[in-house]
Amino acid sequence: MSDAPVRLLIHGASGRMGRALLRLCAGREDCCAAAAVARRVEQRVIDGVPHFSAAELHGVPAFDVAIDFSLPDGLDPLLALCVQRGAALVSGTTGLSDAQQRALTEAAGRVPVLWAANYSLGVAVLDELVERAAGALRDWDCDIVEAHHAHKQDAPSGTALALGESARRSGAEPRYASLRAGDIVGEHTVQFCGIGERIELVHRATSRDVFAIGALAAAVRLRRREAGRYGLRELLFGDPARPG
Amino acid sequence: MSDAPVRLLIHGASGRMGRALLRLCAGREDCCAAAAVARRVEQRVIDGVPHFSAAELHGVPAFDVAIDFSLPDGLDPLLALCVQRGAALVSGTTGLSDAQQRALTEAAGRVPVLWAANYSLGVAVLDELVERAAGALRDWDCDIVEAHHAHKQDAPSGTALALGESARRSGAEPRYASLRAGDIVGEHTVQFCGIGERIELVHRATSRDVFAIGALAAAVRLRRREAGRYGLRELLFGDPARPG
Amino acid sequence: MSDAPVRLLIHGASGRMGRALLRLCAGREDCCAAAAVARRVEQRVIDGVPHFSAAELHGVPAFDVAIDFSLPDGLDPLLALCVQRGAALVSGTTGLSDAQQRALTEAAGRVPVLWAANYSLGVAVLDELVERAAGALRDWDCDIVEAHHAHKQDAPSGTALALGESARRSGAEPRYASLRAGDIVGEHTVQFCGIGERIELVHRATSRDVFAIGALAAAVRLRRREAGRYGLRELLFGDPARPG
Amino acid sequence: MSDAPVRLLIHGASGRMGRALLRLCAGREDCCAAAAVARRVEQRVIDGVPHFSAAELHGVPAFDVAIDFSLPDGLDPLLALCVQRGAALVSGTTGLSDAQQRALTEAAGRVPVLWAANYSLGVAVLDELVERAAGALRDWDCDIVEAHHAHKQDAPSGTALALGESARRSGAEPRYASLRAGDIVGEHTVQFCGIGERIELVHRATSRDVFAIGALAAAVRLRRREAGRYGLRELLFGDPARPG
Repeated sequence: MSDAPVRLLIHGASGRMGRALLRLCAGREDCCAAAAVARRVEQRVIDGVPHFSAAELHGVPAFDVAIDFSLPDGLDPLLALCVQRGAALVSGTTGLSDAQQRALTEAAGRVPVLWAANYSLGVAVLDELVERAAGALRDWDCDIVEAHHAHKQDAPSGTALALGESARRSGAEPRYASLRAGDIVGEHTVQFCGIGERIELVHRATSRDVFAIGALAAAVRLRRREAGRYGLRELLFGDPARPG
Repeated sequence: MSDAPVRLLIHGASGRMGRALLRLCAGREDCCAAAAVARRVEQRVIDGVPHFSAAELHGVPAFDVAIDFSLPDGLDPLLALCVQRGAALVSGTTGLSDAQQRALTEAAGRVPVLWAANYSLGVAVLDELVERAAGALRDWDCDIVEAHHAHKQDAPSGTALALGESARRSGAEPRYASLRAGDIVGEHTVQFCGIGERIELVHRATSRDVFAIGALAAAVRLRRREAGRYGLRELLFGDPARPG
Repeated sequence: MSDAPVRLLIHGASGRMGRALLRLCAGREDCCAAAAVARRVEQRVIDGVPHFSAAELHGVPAFDVAIDFSLPDGLDPLLALCVQRGAALVSGTTGLSDAQQRALTEAAGRVPVLWAANYSLGVAVLDELVERAAGALRDWDCDIVEAHHAHKQDAPSGTALALGESARRSGAEPRYASLRAGDIVGEHTVQFCGIGERIELVHRATSRDVFAIGALAAAVRLRRREAGRYGLRELLFGDPARPG
Repeated sequence: MSDAPVRLLIHGASGRMGRALLRLCAGREDCCAAAAVARRVEQRVIDGVPHFSAAELHGVPAFDVAIDFSLPDGLDPLLALCVQRGAALVSGTTGLSDAQQRALTEAAGRVPVLWAANYSLGVAVLDELVERAAGALRDWDCDIVEAHHAHKQDAPSGTALALGESARRSGAEPRYASLRAGDIVGEHTVQFCGIGERIELVHRATSRDVFAIGALAAAVRLRRREAGRYGLRELLFGDPARPG
C-alpha cells in the first residue's frame, strides 16, 4: 500500500457528477484521474485527462479504482474490467436490476465493491449516529426536520426517510416536518427529546459538490480495503481492513 | 423619578402567576410587594407581605403599580383603585368584556395601563423583529417552526400564530411546522430565506417563570411612563416617555 | 426478570441529588424507593419512604439497586451491603480513593456496579456519537461550543473537555469556545466541518433534574445486567446482558 | 415610475463583483445591464452587454442606476456622470478619501446615492434587528458567535464587530466567539440571554453571490427613491420615498 495518488477511472464523465469528479480530482493530492469514459468523446484529452468512449473501454490505462455515475447499461462491462484489472469499484448508478446487484456481490468476491445511493459522507455519518442514539434513547421522542430549496417537490426528502428508517430499526418512532425555502441545498435535523434534556443531530449541505467529494474520499479509502461488498457506512465505520 | 423599589400590589395572589410574582419579587431590588390581594386570605402576612381579601381591597397600603392576573370580575374595583391612587396597572387577565376593555382605555387617560396576553419579554421582542424583518425581506420565504412539550394539544401554538400574523402584516406569507416532544417549555423559530442567505430568529423559553419575570420588568418600566394605554411591544420599543 | 418496579435504596438522601431522586422516584412506575439513608434522620418516614441513618444501614429492607450520591467515607459499608444482598450499585460519588475504585472493581465480580461522574443520559450518548463521528471524519475541522449560566467560573466546562477527549481519541483536534449567559443549564455543540457539508451534534439540558433522571434510568437498566463494572456509555451502548 | 427593468451601468466590470453582477443580472427581470465599464476592454460586446473603457465613460448609453465596485480613483468621474444624467449611484468601493465621501454627500442633493461596505441584505436586516433588540433587552447578556472558513485570518469578523457596535449603541455589552472551519461562507449569531428565556438572531450566508444579489436588489429599490444619501439599512427600513 503506497501513498502514491490513487489512479481513478471516471466512468460517466459527461454527466453532472462526472464533470464534478474531474474538476475536484484536479485539486486533490491523494487521487488523480487516470482516464475518463464518456458516452460520446469529442476531445481526446481534456485538462490532461485522456477520454475514451464506451466502445473503447478496454483501452483505458492502468487504474486503481473506477468511479461510476452513469446509466445501468454501462455497468456490466465496467464491472468485468474492474475484476480483470483487479481494481476496486465505487458506483452510484441507480436503477440497477436484481441481476446487476447480484453481479456486484459476485465481483465483490474478487475486488472491493462499494455501491451507495447517496455519497455525502456527512449523511452517512449522521445515519450511523441516528441509529446508535435511537437504540440508547428508546423512550425519547424522535423528530426529523428537513429543509430544502423551494423547487423540491417531494417531502419528506429521501434522506429524511432513510434516517427515519435507521431510527426505527433501533426502536424510535420518528415524525417528520419539511421546510421548502430559498435555495437551501439540504439540511436534516434529527432530534431526540427526553425530560429536561435533548439531543439534536444536524447535517447541513451547502454545496452540491459534497456527493463528488464523498465519492472521491470513498475511492481513496476503498483502495486500501480487502475484496468485499461495502456500503458507505461500512466503509466509514467498519473494520478498516474488511467489508462490513 | 426615583430609584427606590417600585411598590407592587399583587392582585390574584393565590393563582399560579400570583405565587410566582411574589416568589420572584423577593429576589429583586428594583421592586417589592407592598401588598397582595387574594380571593381567600388564611394568613395575614406571608413572607413579610400583607395579604388582603377582595373585600378589603381599599385598605391596601400605598403602591406604585398593580399587577393583575386574576379573573375578569375582580378587574373593575382594582382599576378604580388604581385611578384613585394614581397608580399604574399591569394586567394579564384574559376573558375581559368589551366594556372592560373600554374601561381600561378610559382609565389610561389618567394612569399608565398595560394589558397583554403574553408577558414573555423575549416573545414580544421576537414579534417586533419579525414584523420589521418581514417588511424588509418581502420576497424571501418565511417559515415558522415551533416546539412544545408532548402534552400540548393545539398546533400551531398561539404564539406561532401571532408571530405569523405580524409577518403577514408586513407582507410575508408564513408557513408553519410544529413539533411536540419531551417537556419543551416553548421554542419558536421564524426563518426568512432568500437566495444564498437566510435569517433565523429564535426564541427559547426554558422556564415557565418567564411570564412573571416579564410582568415584573414591565411594571418597573411602566412606573416611569406617562398615562396612556400600552401593549408590551409599545412599552419595550416605544418612546420611553409616551404610550405607543 | 420481572416487570415489578425496581426497588431502590437511596444513599445520601439529604443531599441535593438524594432529594431529587426521592422526588422523581415518586412519579415513576418502573422503580420505587424502598428506603433512604441519610446522615441525620429526623423523621422516620417521609412521603412513605422509611429513612435510616448511616449507623442503621444494615437494617434497610430488601432492595434491588442502591443509588449513591454521598461522600466517599460512606461508600465502603454500602458496597459491602450490596454484595451481601446481591444488589446492584449505581454511584456518582466523587473523590473516591484508588483503593475504593479497586473495591468497586472487585465487587463487580459479584454484582453489577456502575460508576459515572455525569449521569445525564444525553451527554453520555453525545460522547459516544462524538467519538464515532470523529473516527469517520478525520480530516474535518472539529469545534466544541458550550454555553452555561453567567455564574459558572470554569471554561471550557468539564463536559466539553470530556467530549474533546473523546474526539481526540478518534483523531480529531478539537478547539473550544465558551459562552456564559443568563441561567443556561448547559448546552454543548460539537461541530465537524468538511467542504460543502457539516455535522452539528448538540446537547441541551434545560433542567438540573437530568442527572437524577439519568441515575434512575441507569438503575432500572442495571437491574437486568450481569455482574460487572459498567460506565454509563457501556450501559447504554454495550451488549444488553454484559459489561462493556 | 414604471415597471420596466431598471437599466444598470456596471462599473468595475472585470472585478469579481463586476462579473457576478453581470452574470446575475442576466437572470433577473427587474433589471438589465445597459452597459459595463472595465479598466481594459478586449471585447466590445460580451453576452449582449456593450463594454466601455474608463476613458470612454461618457459614451455609455442611458442608464438609471450605476453600480460601482471598483477602485477609489474611478469614482469621481462616475459620480459626475450620475449627476449629469440624473442617475442613482450604488457604490461598494472601499478606501474612499474624506473628500470623496463629501462628494458623495454633495451629489446626494441631486440624485439618490447609496454607499455600503457590505451588500448582504440579510446582514443589513440582522444589524437593524440587533440594535432594536438590544435596546429592549438592556440587562440581558449579549454574545456574538461567528463562523467562517478555515482560511479567514482575522477574528472577530468585520461583520461581527459591526453587529457588536450596533448592540453597543443600544446599551448592550457584547462578547465575541469565533470559529474557523471548513469552507463556511459566513455565519453570525447574536444571542440575547435573560432568565428563563433567550433570543438568537442568526444570519447564514451559503453563497458568495449574496453581495451581488444585494447590490442588484438595492439598485432596483434605489431607483424609486428621492435624491438623498442612503445606507443599506435606511434603504431597507426607512420611509419608502425618502432618505434615512
